[in-house]
Amino acid sequence: MNINQNYLNLEESYLFSTINKKIAAFANANPEVDIIRLGIGDVTLPLPGSVIKSFHEAVDEMAHSRTFHGYGPEQGYGFLRKAITSYYAQREIGVEESEIFVSDGSKCDVANILDIFGQDNLVLLPNPVYPVYLDTNKMIGRDVAFIHANRENGFLPQPDKNRQADLIYLCSPNNPTGAAYTKEELRKWVEYANCQDAVILFDAAYESFVSDPNMPRSIYEITGARTCAIEFNSFSKMAGFTGTRLGYTVIPQQLVRQGTSLHKLWMRRQTTKFNGVSYMTQRAGAAVFTREGQKEIQENLDYYRENAKIIASKLDQLGIWYTGGKHSPYIWMETPAQMDSWDFFDFLLEKTGIVGTPGIGFGDNGQGFFRLTAFGDRSKTSQAMDRLDRAWREFII
Amino acid sequence: MNINQNYLNLEESYLFSTINKKIAAFANANPEVDIIRLGIGDVTLPLPGSVIKSFHEAVDEMAHSRTFHGYGPEQGYGFLRKAITSYYAQREIGVEESEIFVSDGSKCDVANILDIFGQDNLVLLPNPVYPVYLDTNKMIGRDVAFIHANRENGFLPQPDKNRQADLIYLCSPNNPTGAAYTKEELRKWVEYANCQDAVILFDAAYESFVSDPNMPRSIYEITGARTCAIEFNSFSKMAGFTGTRLGYTVIPQQLVRQGTSLHKLWMRRQTTKFNGVSYMTQRAGAAVFTREGQKEIQENLDYYRENAKIIASKLDQLGIWYTGGKHSPYIWMETPAQMDSWDFFDFLLEKTGIVGTPGIGFGDNGQGFFRLTAFGDRSKTSQAMDRLDRAWREFII
Repeated sequence: MNINQNYLNLEESYLFSTINKKIAAFANANPEVDIIRLGIGDVTLPLPGSVIKSFHEAVDEMAHSRTFHGYGPEQGYGFLRKAITSYYAQREIGVEESEIFVSDGSKCDVANILDIFGQDNLVLLPNPVYPVYLDTNKMIGRDVAFIHANRENGFLPQPDKNRQADLIYLCSPNNPTGAAYTKEELRKWVEYANCQDAVILFDAAYESFVSDPNMPRSIYEITGARTCAIEFNSFSKMAGFTGTRLGYTVIPQQLVRQGTSLHKLWMRRQTTKFNGVSYMTQRAGAAVFTREGQKEIQENLDYYRENAKIIASKLDQLGIWYTGGKHSPYIWMETPAQMDSWDFFDFLLEKTGIVGTPGIGFGDNGQGFFRLTAFGDRSKTSQAMDRLDRAWREFII
Repeated sequence: MNINQNYLNLEESYLFSTINKKIAAFANANPEVDIIRLGIGDVTLPLPGSVIKSFHEAVDEMAHSRTFHGYGPEQGYGFLRKAITSYYAQREIGVEESEIFVSDGSKCDVANILDIFGQDNLVLLPNPVYPVYLDTNKMIGRDVAFIHANRENGFLPQPDKNRQADLIYLCSPNNPTGAAYTKEELRKWVEYANCQDAVILFDAAYESFVSDPNMPRSIYEITGARTCAIEFNSFSKMAGFTGTRLGYTVIPQQLVRQGTSLHKLWMRRQTTKFNGVSYMTQRAGAAVFTREGQKEIQENLDYYRENAKIIASKLDQLGIWYTGGKHSPYIWMETPAQMDSWDFFDFLLEKTGIVGTPGIGFGDNGQGFFRLTAFGDRSKTSQAMDRLDRAWREFII
């Protein structure tokens, strides 16, 4: 009996447990301080009314034999896949219903997609990175190469034509940096991938935060992407579904490698190892794309966008370098005087009661950086920025 | 760029698509025949009232900031894991909350569990078998060995002490055969697994159909199982959750291989590649274990049990050999005069309008056998047995 030895080579993920321990110790020693958490990437606003209404209706359907739903269609219900194609069509992107696979979230899909690829692939990952991309490759014993994201390239690395690649992870707007590629920049990646016969795994989980129509929200806005890119998207940040679980993956019919359709491989993977998403959740998800649903989610997104703006304006005022804050719920700020990420975490907690996430937790290029998120309460976010202002003027400037 | 070549070695799963094509052709040629489907393994009764009520309440919680739930706890909500431990405790089985991992269904878990094991393991699979066990091993390029289930051993194969094994799949009550192990028989497997240092992957998805208190419903009813078995269970057949998606996996703390806790490996796998089940679904699932929920699901199970009894009684009357029908929604019958499974499918459809599943679809030991299910409507099931009776007397006896 052999266990998967690759698991023993994984680094333990201490990031959020260490943060929680530090918060607990601080709270214990300073019970009078109102701690403001700007660290987590979880939404806080409730589900929109139209989503709640559809959910209730679907639950009622499940209560009667005639309207009950058992196992659903393999790729998800037609009504939801159709709604998703309309969502793309609004932006003049042609994605077919047959190309959409409904799932319980991007995290699962972006991890499980590796099943359909061979072991001997060269993988390019940005650094800093969403840890799931890295760990899932390590779990199958695959070495990865990093593309460096840093202050010099605005945390938006560009392809190096002299470098080989088979699988390329891109996330834009990015987690954790909030940086977002322009169409011109994405085009370079698409050209590079097609040239290398590589596949781009494009994580679009934060696309709904983009409000500038000139900024891309889907890799398929770029000519040539249909022959080199798989896109992952989620209802988590778009519509507050973090605790509801719904996402989708698009694999274009034209995406063929070694003479085999990747769409067909993923279909085989999903029908064998997955059993679909609850009927009720899919009905609730479809409500997001109604006129009412779109209006409601935009209001919620605007709330978070305004939080991001409040944070970004304060950083501007204080002359702090950062990425994100625009097109993204994340603000990736430089620490003062090249302070270590964890030292800055302690400084911020002790002096202001603000909790954020040390950049080093996302890779060594995150050293000296710090992530704040816009998912908090408005007044708490404003209050946090007032505290940051005072601390900065007292201790830093 | 390499695709996973193992996928090219998978046999296409034509079973249910072939069945559907044959039904369509028959229906087209015989529009006057009322086709009765006893082929599918999907439930037909609606969700119980207590489940619907909890679902609605949880949806309402998601509509307000103060009661909204984002990302849930890693292994599932405490309230559900606690309810599951009580479900075990009723049968005097000690399973800790910490040993339970809530998921979106057994199919995913029984497939994904392979991630934590090394490539070089000897895998034992029963034949006939639920295709997911076989295909998921083939997908990672692993050869498997079969343990023969057949009429001689009542489709309940016993371990062979002279044979090596690392991973052993057991499903009892079985899909597709409906055969269920006694405690004494399971004890032999547990002893064998401990002796071999092997791990039993025990699929208990049909345990709720067992009504005889002397028959085991969990592998943990057997002494020694906590050091050699992982148990998978699902709300699908227990409470009609096929279209709702909820299951759980139990990994005892004592289950250690190569000095490593399998519980810890699975925790790492799930926290990296999975993001939990909807809060609402977990609340709905917890309702299943309330007094009212238990009463309701037993009524539904009794309905299916009575269907199974109607089918089994008819087979008894006609002198047809079969397994299942008791402790199981499946009836696995021998075809008359060693008729080929597909020929019998055609015979049954043409002469009676009944649809079942050819046993050969589950492995070559299924040749000459045929699966009927008890998930249909009561009057249709009775009607089907009347038709079977007539056809048998006219063409077979």
